[in-house]
Amino acid sequence: MNADELHRFVEEHFPQAQDFCQVSQLTDDSIELHLRYREAYLRPGGTLSGPTLMGLADTAAYLLILSRIGPVALAVTTNLNINFVRKPSAEDIVATGRLLKLGKQLAVVEVHIALAATRLLVAQATVTYSIPPAKS
Amino acid sequence: MNADELHRFVEEHFPQAQDFCQVSQLTDDSIELHLRYREAYLRPGGTLSGPTLMGLADTAAYLLILSRIGPVALAVTTNLNINFVRKPSAEDIVATGRLLKLGKQLAVVEVHIALAATRLLVAQATVTYSIPPAKS
Amino acid sequence: MNADELHRFVEEHFPQAQDFCQVSQLTDDSIELHLRYREAYLRPGGTLSGPTLMGLADTAAYLLILSRIGPVALAVTTNLNINFVRKPSAEDIVATGRLLKLGKQLAVVEVHIALAATRLLVAQATVTYSIPPAKS
Amino acid sequence: MNADELHRFVEEHFPQAQDFCQVSQLTDDSIELHLRYREAYLRPGGTLSGPTLMGLADTAAYLLILSRIGPVALAVTTNLNINFVRKPSAEDIVATGRLLKLGKQLAVVEVHIALAATRLLVAQATVTYSIPPAKS
Repeated sequence: MNADELHRFVEEHFPQAQDFCQVSQLTDDSIELHLRYREAYLRPGGTLSGPTLMGLADTAAYLLILSRIGPVALAVTTNLNINFVRKPSAEDIVATGRLLKLGKQLAVVEVHIALAATRLLVAQATVTYSIPPAKS
Repeated sequence: MNADELHRFVEEHFPQAQDFCQVSQLTDDSIELHLRYREAYLRPGGTLSGPTLMGLADTAAYLLILSRIGPVALAVTTNLNINFVRKPSAEDIVATGRLLKLGKQLAVVEVHIALAATRLLVAQATVTYSIPPAKS
Repeated sequence: MNADELHRFVEEHFPQAQDFCQVSQLTDDSIELHLRYREAYLRPGGTLSGPTLMGLADTAAYLLILSRIGPVALAVTTNLNINFVRKPSAEDIVATGRLLKLGKQLAVVEVHIALAATRLLVAQATVTYSIPPAKS
Repeated sequence: MNADELHRFVEEHFPQAQDFCQVSQLTDDSIELHLRYREAYLRPGGTLSGPTLMGLADTAAYLLILSRIGPVALAVTTNLNINFVRKPSAEDIVATGRLLKLGKQLAVVEVHIALAATRLLVAQATVTYSIPPAKS
């Protein structure tokens, strides 16, 4: 699937998520998502909340894997490990995912989350998805 | 801080979070949070969303650490690792946090998230917080 | 497999590992391994080395999973996450593994590593194994 | 410290480790280590053992951090998360570490481990070190 097909897949299956972020780049083994800042993502202290960043990392991994295996809504996250390295200020951010492994049962994606304007790293995550066996 | 003081601290500093979950038990090195099911936490397929579970694990760790070090709003998550072991159905869940380490710089909490009714495990997380140096 | 069968399996398939540690307890969903202190495990500063603790956590997970799925030498570690919470002094240690999930494709084990004498926790790990599809 | 100073530091403080691997590249925020294959690193099945890869990831992070903060033997690993993405065959490997964060209390390094000949990725790790407070 290309970026347009991914967007249509999200619209259809995850309607509440379609405003969450946009696919700004997609290659064979990488993806870039752009998250537009909203007040709802803030936590006290004026930084973007942890769940917002974790949700973005998870979404980057999911869409990158889908773009390779096709519209299988059933792939599920089995592990997510995230390191918060800098407090993200209240601005747009980008998540860049790189496919480390795409096996029959498991896929692993490394995600870097940075401020959109300066590309300063705010978090790094590694996300593992379990891929359902192909039906025959 | 005891459970009541924790609730008041959350009300004051994280007003939008006070309806998220309730402290149902608190000891010297453990905490139990109860999350009441809401439709907003669902993702397609009828399971509780990953960010909901990750936010709950993070909150359990934060409140347990606060109960020990006092109302220091500045403690920040540095690492969160979560394993999703079963799809959580649309029902109330409980998170049980256990303090593994409370050092001067770092605190580590292990969190088990289970269905409230059956105590069936749905996720396990380990959360590390950085503790700001005490001012002297 | 019970503890004796596990030991025989290790002797046969991992001869160099059979002196590494002993299974001191085994139930349906838990295992306890005892590691006898040796100088070879030390790193400068007189503490047990990280790779020794990581190897012990991995072994605990592996043997617990094997005891449930039978002698499948091909199960492989896909993820290991470890938190070092206290410097382990030069003494015997025990690792306690608990099965969090045993699925068709993945198994997840939580491991606590403590000093054998005082049961003081020194590390906590979560280990995920991929289970090869059963041949039909 | 540059690569030569790092090697001398290892020789002096970790004499048993000096044959383990060599620093083949060192920049301000990255390091490359070369591990020469030895039979001792094998596990049954002819693949490099998990503890060998975990020890290599940890060493890469340690030396990269030391090169920046100076010869502080007391920096300690607090968290190591590793994903094994391919079985490493019995050959030389390289570990490439990148500094994600260097704070006053914590440093985070991302490590990619690949076969030296083909640069095929076999594991990815994220390693967190706690940095002891500077004495004043």
